[in-house]
Amino acid sequence: MRILIIGTGGTIASAKTERGYKAKLSVDEILELAGIKGNGVEIETKDILNLDSTLIQPEDWVTIGMAVFENLNDYDGIVITHGTDTLAYTSSALSFMLRNVPVPIVLTGSMLPITEPKSDAPRNLKTALTFAMRGLPGVYVAFMDKIMLGTRVSKVHSLGLNAFQSVNYPDVAYVKGDEIVVRHRPKLPSGKPEFDPSIDPNVVHLRLTPGLSPDVFLSIAEKVNGIVLEGYGAGGIPYRGRNLLKAVSKVTEEKPVVMTTQALYGGVDLTRYEVGRRALEAGVIPAGDMTKEATLTKLMWALGHTKSVEEVREIMGRNIAGELSSAF
Amino acid sequence: MRILIIGTGGTIASAKTERGYKAKLSVDEILELAGIKGNGVEIETKDILNLDSTLIQPEDWVTIGMAVFENLNDYDGIVITHGTDTLAYTSSALSFMLRNVPVPIVLTGSMLPITEPKSDAPRNLKTALTFAMRGLPGVYVAFMDKIMLGTRVSKVHSLGLNAFQSVNYPDVAYVKGDEIVVRHRPKLPSGKPEFDPSIDPNVVHLRLTPGLSPDVFLSIAEKVNGIVLEGYGAGGIPYRGRNLLKAVSKVTEEKPVVMTTQALYGGVDLTRYEVGRRALEAGVIPAGDMTKEATLTKLMWALGHTKSVEEVREIMGRNIAGELSSAF
Repeated sequence: MRILIIGTGGTIASAKTERGYKAKLSVDEILELAGIKGNGVEIETKDILNLDSTLIQPEDWVTIGMAVFENLNDYDGIVITHGTDTLAYTSSALSFMLRNVPVPIVLTGSMLPITEPKSDAPRNLKTALTFAMRGLPGVYVAFMDKIMLGTRVSKVHSLGLNAFQSVNYPDVAYVKGDEIVVRHRPKLPSGKPEFDPSIDPNVVHLRLTPGLSPDVFLSIAEKVNGIVLEGYGAGGIPYRGRNLLKAVSKVTEEKPVVMTTQALYGGVDLTRYEVGRRALEAGVIPAGDMTKEATLTKLMWALGHTKSVEEVREIMGRNIAGELSSAF
Repeated sequence: MRILIIGTGGTIASAKTERGYKAKLSVDEILELAGIKGNGVEIETKDILNLDSTLIQPEDWVTIGMAVFENLNDYDGIVITHGTDTLAYTSSALSFMLRNVPVPIVLTGSMLPITEPKSDAPRNLKTALTFAMRGLPGVYVAFMDKIMLGTRVSKVHSLGLNAFQSVNYPDVAYVKGDEIVVRHRPKLPSGKPEFDPSIDPNVVHLRLTPGLSPDVFLSIAEKVNGIVLEGYGAGGIPYRGRNLLKAVSKVTEEKPVVMTTQALYGGVDLTRYEVGRRALEAGVIPAGDMTKEATLTKLMWALGHTKSVEEVREIMGRNIAGELSSAF
């Protein structure tokens, strides 16, 4: 059995500096500090980036995706160490770019630097490695004894060790002693592995807040190729006092406006309330029960393939990598 | 004992129409449908708005606040029925506008229309009324057997009945049988009641996402008087590839940029990582452990009082209505 660990930086690779923690360790150094040996499994490592994940840009997803794709046939599983801040974006983006992967691709990281005595890094790395040996194809995130589907995770805590949750979707597996118990095997498309990295990073994610100015919305829309609008609850766009609905309706003639929700759980249902139906009529594309990270990266990926609003609508509404439930 | 119920609309006041649910019932009709009678308590009602709360605008907070302030001395408690979508914004805004209220002001609503057999409206109304009789001064939200501080709630579920959570702060009270048990009495400022409704609604809330363009950020900043930037995890601003940090640093010379976090729990700590320290040096104002709703409405309220970035920084960093923990 051969496992590749690809290093990209993050808290898991960080050590104290005079200006706060900073990513600087190699994967080999992390493995040594974590006390992880192969135990019969051949572990190879590859450092491709060493960044605080706040600094990760969409182009880096292509770099990471390429490193995965080039090694798909040589390993039984691939682990990626990554900072936690944008880990859910990277896991989502890789899920759209890397189609039909034949082996497990497992992202992990830690909330405390590996150089700290109570670090969660050894535990998370061990979980990721153990799951990577299990042979379940797909892109996953291993964190705090849980394995979650890559398109379904969000970072929900900025300090606590149990920082990730699988949103609107069950955990895929959990750690029990030295074992991994699979409790929900995701239905993912199968076929020939493909690397399809075309993305358009020129999108913006705006939160709908009371009083949001239609003029501000229009001027933002002019500068980007797509907008994620994070509405309230089940979704809807205000038209009273300030007529944002009219502005949105104008934008959707040329550019996709995708509506997600501020509520962490439950997703968007634009058929439920009058304000939602009006949003649908204004051409808004509902994000259903997708995470915010999956919604944004899927929009970038869709726009990398077409600028047609109707084609983007079709892509956003189609389940590509387990990110969208069929009920939506 | 006298309680006033102020109606503003929302699902709790809505009934089926051909175009989905729409707010249309008066508070008296809601009380009748909920089967709520005074039982020795004098209940008076006042309908001031009847809106799906997606449509609530900052000016409506002034209208609602005024209706509360004018009646403060005539009642032992005031209940406000409100849609759930922007309820946490209204409860936060009222908390900043209405200082030193001498009686309980309790907002409530429901996830299912009162006209539906399984509606949570009767239960939530009863909880709100019972807590309003308890005499604990301050602005609160009553929902699903919990009483939460008005500046600490967020809507976390778009469908489930337990839709609100007190974020980074304990619940104030809970329902046990027919009783309300107070478990955490918030320390709120006391003094002469004041209505201080000056706000500047011209702000925007932008989510930091990988690849966010510095040009887009600068063009948004030109159009508004303040920005809430929702960063990753503990907070930080990217400067690699696309130099957003430089753009932010330029904006903070003239306008406040407040950093909150995408993580629901844990808040912002810009001293932790190098990317955070650089953000602090660039003049970013940390939101600490405030909710996104409190952060936005507090920024509007601060800008209603001053356009000086340093004065806004001082206001944002000061605990005004229980919204900010002293550790931050």
